[in-house]
Amino acid sequence: WANGGLGCKAAVAWVPGKPLSIEEVEVAPPKTHEVRVKIISTSVCHTDWENLYDAGKGMMSRPFPLVLGHEGAGVVESVGPGVTGFTAGDKVIPLFLPYCGECERCQSVKTNHCRKNWEKAQRGVMADGTSRISCQGQQVHQFLGVSTFSQYTVVSDVSLTKIRSDAPLDKVCLLGCGVSTGYGAALNAGKVEKDSSCAVFGLGAVGLAAVMGCKAAMAKRIIGIDINPKKFEKAKVFGATDCINPADYPQPIQEVVVEMTRGGVDYALECVGRTNVMSAALESTRDAWGTCVIAGWTETEDMKVQVTKILMGRTLKGTYFGGWKSVPDVPKLVDDYMNNKLLLEEFITHNVPLEQINVAFDLLKGGESIRTVISLCDPEDDDATQNKGLLFKQ
Amino acid sequence: WANGGLGCKAAVAWVPGKPLSIEEVEVAPPKTHEVRVKIISTSVCHTDWENLYDAGKGMMSRPFPLVLGHEGAGVVESVGPGVTGFTAGDKVIPLFLPYCGECERCQSVKTNHCRKNWEKAQRGVMADGTSRISCQGQQVHQFLGVSTFSQYTVVSDVSLTKIRSDAPLDKVCLLGCGVSTGYGAALNAGKVEKDSSCAVFGLGAVGLAAVMGCKAAMAKRIIGIDINPKKFEKAKVFGATDCINPADYPQPIQEVVVEMTRGGVDYALECVGRTNVMSAALESTRDAWGTCVIAGWTETEDMKVQVTKILMGRTLKGTYFGGWKSVPDVPKLVDDYMNNKLLLEEFITHNVPLEQINVAFDLLKGGESIRTVISLCDPEDDDATQNKGLLFKQ
Repeated sequence: WANGGLGCKAAVAWVPGKPLSIEEVEVAPPKTHEVRVKIISTSVCHTDWENLYDAGKGMMSRPFPLVLGHEGAGVVESVGPGVTGFTAGDKVIPLFLPYCGECERCQSVKTNHCRKNWEKAQRGVMADGTSRISCQGQQVHQFLGVSTFSQYTVVSDVSLTKIRSDAPLDKVCLLGCGVSTGYGAALNAGKVEKDSSCAVFGLGAVGLAAVMGCKAAMAKRIIGIDINPKKFEKAKVFGATDCINPADYPQPIQEVVVEMTRGGVDYALECVGRTNVMSAALESTRDAWGTCVIAGWTETEDMKVQVTKILMGRTLKGTYFGGWKSVPDVPKLVDDYMNNKLLLEEFITHNVPLEQINVAFDLLKGGESIRTVISLCDPEDDDATQNKGLLFKQ
Repeated sequence: WANGGLGCKAAVAWVPGKPLSIEEVEVAPPKTHEVRVKIISTSVCHTDWENLYDAGKGMMSRPFPLVLGHEGAGVVESVGPGVTGFTAGDKVIPLFLPYCGECERCQSVKTNHCRKNWEKAQRGVMADGTSRISCQGQQVHQFLGVSTFSQYTVVSDVSLTKIRSDAPLDKVCLLGCGVSTGYGAALNAGKVEKDSSCAVFGLGAVGLAAVMGCKAAMAKRIIGIDINPKKFEKAKVFGATDCINPADYPQPIQEVVVEMTRGGVDYALECVGRTNVMSAALESTRDAWGTCVIAGWTETEDMKVQVTKILMGRTLKGTYFGGWKSVPDVPKLVDDYMNNKLLLEEFITHNVPLEQINVAFDLLKGGESIRTVISLCDPEDDDATQNKGLLFKQ
């Protein structure tokens, strides 16, 4: 390929609402402060599904064609000019939330919302306004500046973190979004306290990770809530003390929670992304100090808040990537996993090759999977700089 | 009067929507853990107006007939059995928010929401299920267990605080509700920080007190917002650095605030009680760490929250009586006033006798007053145990 481009396979979303298409793509070399990463493993998150199938409804419309994927892990293939923190062969996790380390937000303890390259990443391009991925001569946008549904991708060096060399990439890829978000929703946003009561709405990966966070915070009671009772067994593995299905009760589920806990839970964590569930979560918390954290995602909708619930002492807050400062915190979460403080295998219900990525989407939507891990490159073929196999060079 | 009842004058609300009527009432002696208080001064708060003229709309319906009033100050006339903290002659402020000092909430630093006698107070009766005020042989309900629009009233000993003997009752009565609420909304609920930017929506007594709280917290910029520009001069006295009128702008006021502050204020304080203003306040705060405190009051309505505003790092919370623990904190606020740390005179625009209380309601509704102080008993006639003047004994 001209200009150092690599040829590889990627799952391309050509248009909203249609399955992904496995294509040969060209991945351009990294520009200044960019890193080209060989993606070994990625998992599929609801946000990927929603950007494909719910664009313009629950999600704002992002430009197509697009390579989705933002829960990946890989190995540095090459670095662009000015990159000092990474070298070829480093194990890394791409980050949809940047961390520049220099802005007012990165230097504040109050937030993890760095906005470096933000607007461009939302529009699917890198800092220079273009994408590094092309297919059939056409630019393909990069989802949130990441695009892990490709055997190679290029990310900004503020959107990448180096992790320990013994980390299994087909497990720690989960830390790129959902697990970190739910776990941090409990620990960082909610600041769940010892001996407290918690309700987790939605027991997908984010919700199960929130349950795990509540358990890590030593909550006394953790109520898992889902309309799919098949999730309950796993929720108990992660630490749920009770599991309830809204379909089993005639009254609204918030009333059930308030009754079970004689006044409401101390913390409610919404991990679904539906506005009626958000209202229910808020209303399930206790007067005087109840905290409701929204970890589920919607970009276009409003939720209804009963003003008296707020006046009577409740707090409503949100979380983005669980409040973790992406670059410094994700390696610590990897350490927690390696030290058996944080579960990851238990989220993985399926493994498929890239060619079957649409199966992973179907399993997720059908509620049959928690996380499906997609294999993109052979993990044994760790010598990324060799560019063997699928790679072509001119 | 039989059974130690006192005869005096009170402003009775016979039915919703009609002006108050000055009547001779009987105030029964205090029962166990109750205190009978001679009210020297009271001010009129929007919540009084709303309970009379907006019952069943913005406010839930409370039982009539009713003696309103919850911003008062007076002198203890007599105490019932079991009362240890008060004696005749003590200067006191009745409290619509109790503080028992013993419950989980009183012992928590997270809240001031004591619920002692709560349900009964909401229904207009004392702990034994009856009121101490009657008129023409009929029980008259006590608003929030207080009823300061009467020359005498009886309150629970957990709904009363003793203040220093040199405090002027015709000023410190304001600390019974509005001023404490707004001031604490900034200091306790918002926890406004030094050098921060703030927007205060609504410049009535609560809003002006919120401005004063932001100034006490050493905020750098304090934007006062009201559709009545007559409030602006006073707002500047309390510390507003900018004052804006939504009617002067074609775009929504939150957009004006976001533009003025290049991204939004750190803290927004809603001091109106209208749900569209609450949404505007939330939307006027900054991504990443903006905090919106609802201090205005509505009991029946829902507000609309754009979920992305929460997900992008904003916090929505409320305040009830400014987060102050009523019994221990109100005397400290009186001290702050006596030590010139907190303004009170500046809120008082009018003084009228009890007979003209409906004028005070009209001035408030017309936006012409901030606070009107009503004189109920002669402040010189401090020897409350003598029961001179209007009082009759059998």
